[in-house]
Amino acid sequence: MKPILFEGQSARLIDQTRLPLEEVWREIRSGPEAAVAIRSMQIRGAPAIGITAAYGMALSALHSKRDSLEAVRAELAEVSAELAATRPTAVNLFWAIRRMNEVAEEATSLAELRERLVREAQAIAAEDEAMCRAMGRHGAELVPAGARILTHCNAGALATGDYGTALGVIRAAHHQGKSIHVWVDETRPFLQGARLTAWELAHEGIPATLLCDSAAGHLMQQGQVDLVVVGSDRITSRGDVANKIGTYTLAVLCRQHNIPFYVAAPRSTIDLAIESGRDIPIEQRDSREVTHLSGQPVAASGVKVFNPAFDVTPAELVTAIITEQGVHRPPFSPTLSRVASQP
Amino acid sequence: MKPILFEGQSARLIDQTRLPLEEVWREIRSGPEAAVAIRSMQIRGAPAIGITAAYGMALSALHSKRDSLEAVRAELAEVSAELAATRPTAVNLFWAIRRMNEVAEEATSLAELRERLVREAQAIAAEDEAMCRAMGRHGAELVPAGARILTHCNAGALATGDYGTALGVIRAAHHQGKSIHVWVDETRPFLQGARLTAWELAHEGIPATLLCDSAAGHLMQQGQVDLVVVGSDRITSRGDVANKIGTYTLAVLCRQHNIPFYVAAPRSTIDLAIESGRDIPIEQRDSREVTHLSGQPVAASGVKVFNPAFDVTPAELVTAIITEQGVHRPPFSPTLSRVASQP
Repeated sequence: MKPILFEGQSARLIDQTRLPLEEVWREIRSGPEAAVAIRSMQIRGAPAIGITAAYGMALSALHSKRDSLEAVRAELAEVSAELAATRPTAVNLFWAIRRMNEVAEEATSLAELRERLVREAQAIAAEDEAMCRAMGRHGAELVPAGARILTHCNAGALATGDYGTALGVIRAAHHQGKSIHVWVDETRPFLQGARLTAWELAHEGIPATLLCDSAAGHLMQQGQVDLVVVGSDRITSRGDVANKIGTYTLAVLCRQHNIPFYVAAPRSTIDLAIESGRDIPIEQRDSREVTHLSGQPVAASGVKVFNPAFDVTPAELVTAIITEQGVHRPPFSPTLSRVASQP
Repeated sequence: MKPILFEGQSARLIDQTRLPLEEVWREIRSGPEAAVAIRSMQIRGAPAIGITAAYGMALSALHSKRDSLEAVRAELAEVSAELAATRPTAVNLFWAIRRMNEVAEEATSLAELRERLVREAQAIAAEDEAMCRAMGRHGAELVPAGARILTHCNAGALATGDYGTALGVIRAAHHQGKSIHVWVDETRPFLQGARLTAWELAHEGIPATLLCDSAAGHLMQQGQVDLVVVGSDRITSRGDVANKIGTYTLAVLCRQHNIPFYVAAPRSTIDLAIESGRDIPIEQRDSREVTHLSGQPVAASGVKVFNPAFDVTPAELVTAIITEQGVHRPPFSPTLSRVASQP
């Protein structure tokens, strides 16, 4: 289930705002079109955003009307700025943009620039899928047979090049025949759990049950959760984890109930430039995500809204971080530093 | 803001499933019609359910076609059973039904039965309002000036005869000029916070901000919450508190952040027959409350759903219980026993 398909002169994205009711694919032919798709959350999930941005840059270079290497590089700088402004929290976006610009700098002709940018974007997507499968293998070792696993938001194939991060761990455990059951937080306000994760798991035949985010505590209290696994949008050098709003609450609940709390994310999620999670910018989103449902108002009109898209779970509440390199346990600082700085 | 108005031969209820978009009033003329209104959540909130059931029983007696005291008592027994089956968790419902049946037993003529049942239902409603105002006065002493108060679900005028339990505390603090600010959990799946609490607070001019339930942890982590106050549907003899799903999670978060967690509820909420919260029946509601929004499906079709309406917060996580008698602090057992068994 690849959510982004490159087709030579364009890329197609499955419109995640329309799932699970309709499978609508959108075509993008440039970086600015990629920025629109990211900002509107047609594509979301930290790794998938990075891949989309990379394809957007490659497509902008392919279709650029400018005729010199320098002029196209200048256009790419503008496109990079536009893409970087879409969503501030996920670090994979900035990582992908930087990687594409490094390639652009190395090119010695316009033809080479175009060819190498396409190859680099394809490499980012292919590597992401390989990383997800590696994370799945490593993470599945943490999953006991018969485990009841709770996850939040969508850290699945739809959020990555394919296979997923947290859902990659779940997929791998399922394919190993471990008879798992997945509890899916609906994940207000955007309902990525209800709309995307439940849909992915149903496609794959993995047993799953949906619940409101606020029911997770009750479920743990009843002894119905063996572990929690989530993705991440940014991990600091000390192991503080930014992820979808509600993740921190789950981590606190896990501590209260002595339940392991795992984070699965590729190395590109680690931001060694930031030590404390307090320094991660938290995106505030439109109040209509909370006050309206399916376009209908549900809240008292004019009410003020607090709608942060992410929260930060301090390293102290994280049992282990799973990357494509393996399972990392506290203290995270030395390991993350080594893992993130490897070539 | 009385949500239930008695009008001699009928009662009118504001349809809380239509708020805040429309103020639609429904008329009920019997216990079975009251049961329909309760089951469909046109009226909800533990005290308001008790009042509605009481009026329903009085109206059934008033309009009964049966012509002997015994025959009408028998009809009331059937009506009681139907009302008791509507919602299993709130104890005020059973308390109100019992109180009405005790009056019915004492009546010596059909005319007396009818007159006394109407008076008893009116007394239950009037006492409830007086209790809410007393709770407000007691609870407001716990609220510092400038407090930022988080609440969950709707424990407001709409959930009671008037004034509210948790919102009664908030109202009283506001009217004392304490410059409070209220954080309103939207309260999935039924959105009582977004639809009802935000609406009540806006009507009253009390500053409020709406958030998704899953954002409360982040808000506390940011130091933005000074106290939490919620209502309750049943309190056991040891002080375990059943309330809207998500309440337990808030209590765990309060413990993690050293924030006081208060419960405001009338004495009729205390169930001395049950010691442990594990023995409180937890109502499971229709999966469509989770899978559909404004009648539109949002989740993958056919997904299984876990939709408990309530959870139980153990007494150990409760800072104080506020009743019309005062503020009760741990250990709760002796106090609750005394408070609940007073005439």
